[in-house]
Amino acid sequence: ETPAAAVEVMRRADYRVIEYTHSAGVESYRRALSAFYAQYGISLSHEEMIVTNGGSEALFFAVLAACDAGDEIIIPEPFYANYNGFSESTDVHVVAVPSSIGDNFALPKAEDFERAITPRTRAILICNPSNPTGKLYSREELEQLAELVRRHDLYLIADEVYRDFCYDGLQHVSTLTIEGLEEHVIMIDSISKRYSACGARIGVLATKNKALYSAAMRLAQARLSPSSVMQVLAEALCQTPRSYFEQVNTEYDMRRKLVLDRLSKMQGVKYGQPSGAFYLIAELPVEDADEFAQWLLSDFEHKGETVMFAPASGFYATKGSGKKEVRIAYVLCAADLHKAMDCLQAALAVYPKRTI
Amino acid sequence: ETPAAAVEVMRRADYRVIEYTHSAGVESYRRALSAFYAQYGISLSHEEMIVTNGGSEALFFAVLAACDAGDEIIIPEPFYANYNGFSESTDVHVVAVPSSIGDNFALPKAEDFERAITPRTRAILICNPSNPTGKLYSREELEQLAELVRRHDLYLIADEVYRDFCYDGLQHVSTLTIEGLEEHVIMIDSISKRYSACGARIGVLATKNKALYSAAMRLAQARLSPSSVMQVLAEALCQTPRSYFEQVNTEYDMRRKLVLDRLSKMQGVKYGQPSGAFYLIAELPVEDADEFAQWLLSDFEHKGETVMFAPASGFYATKGSGKKEVRIAYVLCAADLHKAMDCLQAALAVYPKRTI
Repeated sequence: ETPAAAVEVMRRADYRVIEYTHSAGVESYRRALSAFYAQYGISLSHEEMIVTNGGSEALFFAVLAACDAGDEIIIPEPFYANYNGFSESTDVHVVAVPSSIGDNFALPKAEDFERAITPRTRAILICNPSNPTGKLYSREELEQLAELVRRHDLYLIADEVYRDFCYDGLQHVSTLTIEGLEEHVIMIDSISKRYSACGARIGVLATKNKALYSAAMRLAQARLSPSSVMQVLAEALCQTPRSYFEQVNTEYDMRRKLVLDRLSKMQGVKYGQPSGAFYLIAELPVEDADEFAQWLLSDFEHKGETVMFAPASGFYATKGSGKKEVRIAYVLCAADLHKAMDCLQAALAVYPKRTI
Repeated sequence: ETPAAAVEVMRRADYRVIEYTHSAGVESYRRALSAFYAQYGISLSHEEMIVTNGGSEALFFAVLAACDAGDEIIIPEPFYANYNGFSESTDVHVVAVPSSIGDNFALPKAEDFERAITPRTRAILICNPSNPTGKLYSREELEQLAELVRRHDLYLIADEVYRDFCYDGLQHVSTLTIEGLEEHVIMIDSISKRYSACGARIGVLATKNKALYSAAMRLAQARLSPSSVMQVLAEALCQTPRSYFEQVNTEYDMRRKLVLDRLSKMQGVKYGQPSGAFYLIAELPVEDADEFAQWLLSDFEHKGETVMFAPASGFYATKGSGKKEVRIAYVLCAADLHKAMDCLQAALAVYPKRTI
């Protein structure tokens, strides 16, 4: 649930005239965000942030501000399918560098990124922890990437919206805490996942690079401002106690373990070890997960129910990759997750095109 | 003020989990909008609308969906400065067709538009009533334009966000009520001006053209959804009684007459006859209104106060046009408008570079 105390603050505010705010967002909210990030060791002034209509708009501004038409952005695949939509609608080309389930979706090695760099490459985009893999990148992985980014003078667009969802005692490392990357990082964040407030549409673009900031500000000015009412909510959400995150994390961790435990008992199913966000990728003993997912909806039922998966092929830019994989989002309560896993197990036992 | 009854509905809604909505917007809100438009004789189904983050996003979607990089949009100038920002950030070129204060900013003639059409022209964009001129286009003007749009198979992007601000007993004519334009019109609307709710960031893109709609929907899906909370407000605002608009219009009409009356008494000042929105363009007896506006802020005071104008040059794409003009927004209360006019009058009497 969205933290109720912040919702109460939003309900009670003064709305005589619902006015535009500053195009970069309400200053008091940006100052509150600055204090919020300080808790993570992230140093950001309110003048290094632009409040956006969701993380989506922040990403869009980042791509538009960093690239001209025809430029390229390198993204490890599988990646959040919408990255494609943004880039393609601006004539910026996505170049995918593969990561794989066998390697637990580790960040590709510097030399793999390097092979993908061309004179049109402007940025590398990562999502950490990752949607759709649940992979949490280590400081070592990020530092190798940082060295490359500096050497080729690229932007590093870091989508960190799942920062607060880390498990197994692991800590999230923000790209903004990596030394020497100050001029390169464009950090994308959002309150959607952090506070279960997707419908507020409040995100942020943060960068210490002044040229990039001012290019992004021109885009922000062209759309006037984010919602003033939703910024009242977002500012109040900054006061959410740590106990909220602990509670939410405990719940997600339990769901994660439940799904992993159930998958481990299904023959022929492979999966990575997700340590962040609330997604994982599983490889199923089928030829085509897209077809299987459709079959689940049209031809299968187990005790009057079925289950829907996102076929992972949509998260790969390389044709043919991830064909046997699905993304599992463990966002349901335990009882429903068990029912979903029951369905999957029963379905794999009878699916005509199963390969096991 | 924003209508208080709708704000109350927004305050009291259930926000346990603030979730995404459909990418086209909440269906019940779109159905309410459909009923709202029916009052104006505009027939639009809820499946012909996409709710957007303000009119700004609707405009952005319209341009991106109608044009490829390198394409052209024709706009009568002077025009809302942000039209440039949107078009340029997407590599779409604005081609301006002049209208002039001497002609009361009438819609340029069909042959003037025609001369500007090239093989790359995809759309004509109008704002009716116009920001910044206050011009309300007549049915005859719009029908001439419609004939041209059909003949050249162009889109007509119609920014109608000031629809409810019309004076002198004149009625707004929506492009969606002009016969034979069904496949051509992309209507942009917003609750910002209509209900004094700019900070809600709720707009709409409406079109009966299915190909355009589906292209715009792909953009809408890439940014997930508009704010669910702000759509609660927007839906409630659809119930605002006509008396609200009558009251607001009476107030703006009084302000409009006040400004026109004061300007008529200033020597060397010319202006059009604005019949809509809450703007007008005035030509001042100065060489350079930009310089004059700066001088007002840095070197002038009248009884301890001064006045700020938007120099009109920013509303023209053609270099050198509108150099002596300013845009006046009559959005202040009568007492403040009088003080502003006092300042202008006093300033014009002493400005060193006055031309009268």
